[in-house]
Amino acid sequence: MTRDELYSNIKRKKSFLCVGLDTDLKKIPEHLLKEEDPIFAFNKAIVDATAPYCIAYKPNLAFYEGAGLKGIQALYKTIDYIRTNYPDQFIIADAKRGDIGNTSMMYAGSFFDEMKADAVTVAPYMGQDSVTPFLGHEGNWVILLALTSNKGADDFQYIKDSEGTPLYQNVLRKSLEWGGNADNMMYVVGATRAEMLTDIRRTVPDSFLLVPGIGAQGGSLADVCKYGMNSKCGLIVNSSRAIIYADKTESFAAVAALKAQEVQQEMASFLK
Amino acid sequence: MTRDELYSNIKRKKSFLCVGLDTDLKKIPEHLLKEEDPIFAFNKAIVDATAPYCIAYKPNLAFYEGAGLKGIQALYKTIDYIRTNYPDQFIIADAKRGDIGNTSMMYAGSFFDEMKADAVTVAPYMGQDSVTPFLGHEGNWVILLALTSNKGADDFQYIKDSEGTPLYQNVLRKSLEWGGNADNMMYVVGATRAEMLTDIRRTVPDSFLLVPGIGAQGGSLADVCKYGMNSKCGLIVNSSRAIIYADKTESFAAVAALKAQEVQQEMASFLK
Repeated sequence: MTRDELYSNIKRKKSFLCVGLDTDLKKIPEHLLKEEDPIFAFNKAIVDATAPYCIAYKPNLAFYEGAGLKGIQALYKTIDYIRTNYPDQFIIADAKRGDIGNTSMMYAGSFFDEMKADAVTVAPYMGQDSVTPFLGHEGNWVILLALTSNKGADDFQYIKDSEGTPLYQNVLRKSLEWGGNADNMMYVVGATRAEMLTDIRRTVPDSFLLVPGIGAQGGSLADVCKYGMNSKCGLIVNSSRAIIYADKTESFAAVAALKAQEVQQEMASFLK
Repeated sequence: MTRDELYSNIKRKKSFLCVGLDTDLKKIPEHLLKEEDPIFAFNKAIVDATAPYCIAYKPNLAFYEGAGLKGIQALYKTIDYIRTNYPDQFIIADAKRGDIGNTSMMYAGSFFDEMKADAVTVAPYMGQDSVTPFLGHEGNWVILLALTSNKGADDFQYIKDSEGTPLYQNVLRKSLEWGGNADNMMYVVGATRAEMLTDIRRTVPDSFLLVPGIGAQGGSLADVCKYGMNSKCGLIVNSSRAIIYADKTESFAAVAALKAQEVQQEMASFLK
């Protein structure tokens, strides 16, 4: 999906919501456990209910790998279901991969060719040759970790070099030297770090930012929009637990739809 | 596997070789492609041939994920085969994962409980809560990226903070504050950075180091031993392509065994 297509979906649906599919057998409604494929059954119900209110889905690979082979099969089935039934949804494989060049090349094949994701999250620690193999697939995106939403982000991401530049800024700057631009690269910036968005926008004014951390992790949508929005929105804001686990009865999908709609309506007000 | 068990295997087999199972359908001998499961057939032959000369296997997850669901099935089958037939082998899931706490918890379940690996490689960019969920599984190990063997390592890992400490040293130091110690944590240090091992040994004198990059990537075993070995060996040196792809005829496994034996014999001389 191109940047223009993504922005056009955002305008049409008045939403820049991404629903995080962190599907965990221990957390889904109990009645689904008797289904043949409970993970897929849950995802299908969540997707059918929330699709009108969001423009992206972000399955987190850990949750599927954590369920073993069956989990990974359910993930493939889920992506295929979204691709077939909701072709305007942007699909992010939240995998946080990154390895030496020949290995990152294999990961790119895995996520873009086998799994048919639009985008994959990539960790920057190993530098240029761990990231560039994900670039250059037309219509596919790298989403590079810059400033994450978790507490551990403080450990390394803010470390300043001798010129006072923090590591996350060095990551942004280097990525631009590697061929990353607003049409093939986005950045993860946690909603819990909203005040840093002004600083980040100076380096990557046009790029989309994938913002996790609203809802369960406590970030504020208003702050994210205030500091992070650009003229073409430039934001994909993710919510996982606060939507998909809002209810654990047989009404879980209807409640998820309501929660997604609430966020979408708040987003619509910021898009005006 | 405990550190003592690992060291005892090293002494008994006079080897600290890890064979990297970077199994790629495009590179395995052509005659295997007619097998029902070519990836597993290749791995089984390589493992049977090289097991006497190594103490660990390191499947790189990218290569299996890159082959889609079938590839992942072949990986599970491979690990099960090693577990059953060569229970003294240390199995490293080279996955370079790392995510927010609840997600890293899922990955730990995936690699330790589902896949039955002994160890998993973890990227440090997201800090403490992305790493600690992998600790505390008795007999299981985190192998944290410190200084990698690729060219991109230069981009961030050497960046010095205002006190002159490079990022990879900050990673080592922080990991010790998180509860990492020589019995539950190892570090990736590329053989192509052998001269840095002296510096690394000052911070983690007793820890095992997983050293990729000899063979195809050009690192020297002699240098790695000179700068990195400690009184209990403290090294697991990986070779992938130079062993498993040394020959592409029907003799590939026999040639892999010879190549592994050559490395083992060189290692035996350094262990004296």
